[in-house]
Amino acid sequence: MRPTLTAFQASPDRGRGLARDMGVRWALEEVGQPYDVRLVSFAEMKAPAHLALQPFGQIPTYEAGGLSLFESGAIVLHIAESGPGLLPSDPHARARAISWMFAALSTIEPPIVERSMAGLVERDAPWFAERLPLLDERIDVRLAQLSRRLGDAPWLDGDFSAGDLMVVTVLRRADPAMLARHPALAAYIARAEARPAFQRAFAAQLAVFTALQAGG
Amino acid sequence: MRPTLTAFQASPDRGRGLARDMGVRWALEEVGQPYDVRLVSFAEMKAPAHLALQPFGQIPTYEAGGLSLFESGAIVLHIAESGPGLLPSDPHARARAISWMFAALSTIEPPIVERSMAGLVERDAPWFAERLPLLDERIDVRLAQLSRRLGDAPWLDGDFSAGDLMVVTVLRRADPAMLARHPALAAYIARAEARPAFQRAFAAQLAVFTALQAGG
Repeated sequence: MRPTLTAFQASPDRGRGLARDMGVRWALEEVGQPYDVRLVSFAEMKAPAHLALQPFGQIPTYEAGGLSLFESGAIVLHIAESGPGLLPSDPHARARAISWMFAALSTIEPPIVERSMAGLVERDAPWFAERLPLLDERIDVRLAQLSRRLGDAPWLDGDFSAGDLMVVTVLRRADPAMLARHPALAAYIARAEARPAFQRAFAAQLAVFTALQAGG
Repeated sequence: MRPTLTAFQASPDRGRGLARDMGVRWALEEVGQPYDVRLVSFAEMKAPAHLALQPFGQIPTYEAGGLSLFESGAIVLHIAESGPGLLPSDPHARARAISWMFAALSTIEPPIVERSMAGLVERDAPWFAERLPLLDERIDVRLAQLSRRLGDAPWLDGDFSAGDLMVVTVLRRADPAMLARHPALAAYIARAEARPAFQRAFAAQLAVFTALQAGG
């Protein structure tokens, strides 16, 4: 059953693969599952038809064979459970990979999103310059802890898993200059981005932006 | 195999059941799984032995039969998969319940935590009064969306699930005055808090605080 995702018709990230459909596309490519994409405008995201699929008016959603899901973490987990290669078969290793998925979204991502949001919403506020170092410090603490845990291993816990996929998806939203201060993490991200499945997913989301630019 | 959790030796919430062990205790009570707790000081949380279990120096951790997990969402999901009552057996309903777990931690919680943190870290900053309405508005948008989805149903999707457990755990960290503006959510939380498993978990974490106060 070929799933259908929703994604931004006009992604604010301008094709950099930072919107939340990116991790889902990547997971589908890792397990070799073809998919369709339905693009939605900002107005459509807030309309009843989309809110029925996604109560918070966000993307992505996932529909397949009568199942409708939201939240990129939940969708990636569902894909990882449905196909090969993203979750270890050993039950303990599987549970640990899922720990990393939650760590990505619940511990690593919030300060990164907070920093991005401040840059959009509070850039002209008189306090922005003073708050910025506080926000960056919160991200840097997490990056240092993650880098320490990764050490010189290629992936966080054994083979590449849905945990690495979510962690890298989240890290890619951080300021590249901040990531560069943690060379092991920068190399980890580069290693993930070199995966053919990542490349295909990235190209697919970029094609949406390119077509939009071309007026297509 | 009786699991061991870690929890704060001296929880900053002073026994209100807002620390991240609360959801894990509650899940264990829902499935009827007895457990042990190892209390950790703030110094111990940052020491190598704990960082080996929890790379970000947080609580809770979960150890059982050679498995070691971190992240409350991942631990609750593991418990829900191991025992009865927290995940539907129908695969689609199960995946939707997991969507709500991720929604709790990835979409509903971040603005709530951000508001709490600002109240701690930025309370004396000259911009606090001006930022506060922005922070509250971000929470209120999520509460309104969640309330609209819940409607007059008792739980978010069919029977009580690990999704409701995580959503309620997260909502309890919001300002009660904000929750009171959404009566359906206030009633939803009260319904969850009336569950015997919640009551037992709440009493267990409160006992830690009470003993600490008594110098025990």
